[in-house]
Amino acid sequence: MENSVLKFGGTSVGDFDKIREIAVSLRDRAILGEKLIVVVSAMGGTTDELLSNVKSLSPAPKDDHIALLVTTGEQQTISYLSIVLENLGVKTKAMTGFQAGIKTFGSHMKSRISGVDKACLLSALQENDVLVVAGFQGVNEQNEITALGRGGSDTTAVAIAASCGMPCEIYTDVDGVYATDPRVYEQAKRIYSISYDEMMEMSALGAGVLETRSIEIAKNHSIPLYLGKTLSEEEGTWIMQETKVLERKAVIGAALDEDIIHATIFEPRAESTLIFDLFKKFDEESINVDMISQMSGSKGFQLSFTVKDAESVRLDQIFAETRLFHPDMSLTMETGYCKVSIIGSGMRDMSGVASTAFMALNDSGIRFYQTTTSEISISYVVDKEHGKGAVESLAAAFDL
Amino acid sequence: MENSVLKFGGTSVGDFDKIREIAVSLRDRAILGEKLIVVVSAMGGTTDELLSNVKSLSPAPKDDHIALLVTTGEQQTISYLSIVLENLGVKTKAMTGFQAGIKTFGSHMKSRISGVDKACLLSALQENDVLVVAGFQGVNEQNEITALGRGGSDTTAVAIAASCGMPCEIYTDVDGVYATDPRVYEQAKRIYSISYDEMMEMSALGAGVLETRSIEIAKNHSIPLYLGKTLSEEEGTWIMQETKVLERKAVIGAALDEDIIHATIFEPRAESTLIFDLFKKFDEESINVDMISQMSGSKGFQLSFTVKDAESVRLDQIFAETRLFHPDMSLTMETGYCKVSIIGSGMRDMSGVASTAFMALNDSGIRFYQTTTSEISISYVVDKEHGKGAVESLAAAFDL
Repeated sequence: MENSVLKFGGTSVGDFDKIREIAVSLRDRAILGEKLIVVVSAMGGTTDELLSNVKSLSPAPKDDHIALLVTTGEQQTISYLSIVLENLGVKTKAMTGFQAGIKTFGSHMKSRISGVDKACLLSALQENDVLVVAGFQGVNEQNEITALGRGGSDTTAVAIAASCGMPCEIYTDVDGVYATDPRVYEQAKRIYSISYDEMMEMSALGAGVLETRSIEIAKNHSIPLYLGKTLSEEEGTWIMQETKVLERKAVIGAALDEDIIHATIFEPRAESTLIFDLFKKFDEESINVDMISQMSGSKGFQLSFTVKDAESVRLDQIFAETRLFHPDMSLTMETGYCKVSIIGSGMRDMSGVASTAFMALNDSGIRFYQTTTSEISISYVVDKEHGKGAVESLAAAFDL
Repeated sequence: MENSVLKFGGTSVGDFDKIREIAVSLRDRAILGEKLIVVVSAMGGTTDELLSNVKSLSPAPKDDHIALLVTTGEQQTISYLSIVLENLGVKTKAMTGFQAGIKTFGSHMKSRISGVDKACLLSALQENDVLVVAGFQGVNEQNEITALGRGGSDTTAVAIAASCGMPCEIYTDVDGVYATDPRVYEQAKRIYSISYDEMMEMSALGAGVLETRSIEIAKNHSIPLYLGKTLSEEEGTWIMQETKVLERKAVIGAALDEDIIHATIFEPRAESTLIFDLFKKFDEESINVDMISQMSGSKGFQLSFTVKDAESVRLDQIFAETRLFHPDMSLTMETGYCKVSIIGSGMRDMSGVASTAFMALNDSGIRFYQTTTSEISISYVVDKEHGKGAVESLAAAFDL
């Protein structure tokens, strides 16, 4: 019987009834001889309550003290779940981040995992049926408790799975990965297996079910990742090595990223430092620039890219500063666009994907302003009001 | 400027307003150049709330899981207090039990401290004005989080003070140690300085302000202990080496222990194993037997002792079992008594204490049924209705 890592998020452990139901399902697996490492978040609402207390105490609290406070949330969940499991006759050990040897680096409220104490976990698992580990937390080199950044508990689970060489099942309130967002395209099909690269591309392009970082760790250690709905009989999605995905399709999914700005810059010079000057500032301001197309010729230098709508003010400021050194730069910056993408590792060796996609958009009378491609994806900038229609026609064309 | 360890209990940090007030008082001391290690308990009520959750989840939860849960209470207090202190401009580091290197042994909910990481604390204190340490908790050799037994946070504070060689100030809702309980004798005087031995004797004899264990640690390391009221201007009590106590009195205090059983056993044999058989059982049942008087002669063997009223059922059972092997044992077991004690290390070298005490009781017409003495105390068994009168006459005789 294989050992597994399971992760349950905050809503899955939102109250004691839910904790009891999860405990019963874990007991049923333990009875069959499985050994499980279960990663849990703070009970839904706990973290917000603690943070609101902090707000009442200080206008500018320090991150290390906040991290120390909020991590009590997961410590309480692991205690409660362990108490219920033991009551069901399951031999259980609860472990905080420091006890499980989750080593972190970086800022206290957005730390990243540098290592996991595999020996400690495996030896504890030998003596117990279930280990319950606090997600979202670890200790840094100074022995200070830190909270992980976005997707925290997922990363804890995947890092433990990678380190111990176990598959990792992540349970949330969605029942798997869909070929495209069912809110955009009702007939969207669920994907039962997908490769790491495709899933990373889908996450990066807006299908935000899992943080890219978690998928990357799983890929690097060839750990199968499962994504499914908590306590559901429905089959979710396995994310795995490309060669193990049985059903190969040229295009596996489509993603829609709404509310983007499309900017085009032109400078009438053959040799320009504009691109360096701009991207240095983007980098300093941590602005995420996407869909970069660049052309230069004898007439000058042209650059198109997209950013999220929310960045418009900071972008204005950067352009104003840049214009001081590039006075003859001309600029169009337009809102009201969205980005539609198709993803599939089959694109690598199946021909005709691009032409099928262009044709589908054309047949629906949807105009696209810019196109970029990666090895396993194609993205189009279209008018915002055509975003949904574009996804529908692409999903129909590729049977998503 | 001397460094100090301070301890605030659960009611002292019962709400955010109180935490703010304590933070201001710490800030005021830090401004004067003091470096402080502050030990705090869980906010009043928190532990009870967590334990009631446990009760709803399992009829027989395991101690290690309960300890893991309740220790989140102190972790939250240290976070909150540190956030407020930083907001007041005080450089603060918060430390849980494991971070402060509080090593423990024994059962998870009643563990004892085996050591403290002095180097870690002192180096953290160099870089900060105030260290805020979670009381009541530590980690055992298996790296498991444990809660300390009775008087937990006091022990944490005293153990840190002893290890770092600093005086220890313990703040509660009483304003010091009184010569006798002011609820029994209204005119009772506060004691401003008392020796370790006297304080231990007073604690053991029923003046339950501090656990004997804490005083013992302080004594072994010659650490001055202060006991005072939180945020009060009133001077409390210093507990210190006998040679440093300025005001020497023959008797420093009187204690009243109500609701005791007085038992007398007789066996008409010159050589009896009764005492061994009985005390073996007392020991097995962890029954605390007090005021033991034993006489034996040609007529037989006689033993008197007292126990708390609450033990009467278990005592009955032990006597019934013992009688099987000692059929001619006769027994009187009477309730309705109390124990009155006077304490003072001056008894060692000041004469006339016993006679003054006997006289005082006699003058008040109070009959006593048994008397025992230790090096620095005398205890009397009197009728329950005379307990208060006995304390009053002794307090008046010794100017307490």
